[in-house]
Amino acid sequence: MEILSEKIEMGVVEQRFELPVDSEAVPGIRWHPEGAKVPRPTILIGHGGTQHKRVPNVLGLARRFVRHLGYSAVALDAPGHGERIREWVERTARGMAEWRALLDRLDEEGHGPRYGYWGVSMGTAIGLPFVAAEPRIGAAVLGLAGLGNRPGAERFELAARGLTIPILLVLQWNDELVGQTSGLALFDAIGSTEKTLHINPGGHVQIPLFERDAYESFFVRHLGSARTAA
Amino acid sequence: MEILSEKIEMGVVEQRFELPVDSEAVPGIRWHPEGAKVPRPTILIGHGGTQHKRVPNVLGLARRFVRHLGYSAVALDAPGHGERIREWVERTARGMAEWRALLDRLDEEGHGPRYGYWGVSMGTAIGLPFVAAEPRIGAAVLGLAGLGNRPGAERFELAARGLTIPILLVLQWNDELVGQTSGLALFDAIGSTEKTLHINPGGHVQIPLFERDAYESFFVRHLGSARTAA
Repeated sequence: MEILSEKIEMGVVEQRFELPVDSEAVPGIRWHPEGAKVPRPTILIGHGGTQHKRVPNVLGLARRFVRHLGYSAVALDAPGHGERIREWVERTARGMAEWRALLDRLDEEGHGPRYGYWGVSMGTAIGLPFVAAEPRIGAAVLGLAGLGNRPGAERFELAARGLTIPILLVLQWNDELVGQTSGLALFDAIGSTEKTLHINPGGHVQIPLFERDAYESFFVRHLGSARTAA
Repeated sequence: MEILSEKIEMGVVEQRFELPVDSEAVPGIRWHPEGAKVPRPTILIGHGGTQHKRVPNVLGLARRFVRHLGYSAVALDAPGHGERIREWVERTARGMAEWRALLDRLDEEGHGPRYGYWGVSMGTAIGLPFVAAEPRIGAAVLGLAGLGNRPGAERFELAARGLTIPILLVLQWNDELVGQTSGLALFDAIGSTEKTLHINPGGHVQIPLFERDAYESFFVRHLGSARTAA
């Protein structure tokens, strides 16, 4: 994982890197606490459709996990997004492979074994099948997605039924892209014993900021604090 | 408000009292931090049907609000419950009047103006109409309830539509007493702009303990910290 640049803002180290996957260099960013020495959990953040690895929502979440929890966070430009916007690809399969390659690299560098995943909308379209197939992810926040009739919907539903890790699912009750019934059907389908659903009024991109408190509590509950030995 | 007894356990002062309402002395308990001087919010805790003012769930919540947040908490035996189990009464109207009398007394004693309400199941049957009609309550956690066809359901729904304060509604997805549709209809009916819904798998009395973290965040968000001046 080649580090391209590094900057430090308010105690948060931000490193841009390139992750080689197959013949491509996937651009990403890693955040961690300045001078942190203890083993700490890492949250993988999967951005939404049309977004990229450093949109305000992703950056705000990453800094929060670092500053509030002492965690690390990492984001990649999804296939066809951010610095890769010229590509057209089948996003889910390639996105899953890239997250997997990232975990391999993080493991090699000794950052395991506590990993979480956060991603809504396209971050769930890619992330749900990814975490369902990836035993290294211990807990995941997903949302703004549902079961439906689109291409690939059957595979998505099967992946949801195969989930076993704790899931926090976040839905918007007036989501213009995900109907109430579709979202609730996804919650029903999730196979995990521990799953919890948060619903707020408003549209697709209007998850209230206070849900970030819930993400923090959720990850600390399942991945432990930065001070807890892995 | 006559204090009948006081004990202190692990920094939490617990006072039993009797609140005169009409011709009756309603038994209650008040909890607050030992030696606390700052103005602090008070959470009214309404217990569930067949329970009383000091069942483990109420006691645990009260101590949590005191120890974690520096808040005060107060509970009453609902009509026909606890020390009042011999009575049969129309619970909702009398329960509302008793909470109102308690607020009057707390105001007189200088404990206002920051009040919250926590109560699920019967605590919502009494508490929802109470907080809808009571401008002194700033935020409420409600749940394990829905819209339906029982006697009084129309008044309950009207009260829900009249709510304006922030509400955290907690539902159990396999609640043997409250159907999914009925619970979601209550969420829809709540008139408040800020309302949030948490759903977990399991039956009526199986709300996961981690939701207590959510109650805390919710009250702190809306009532402020104990250190914030009222």
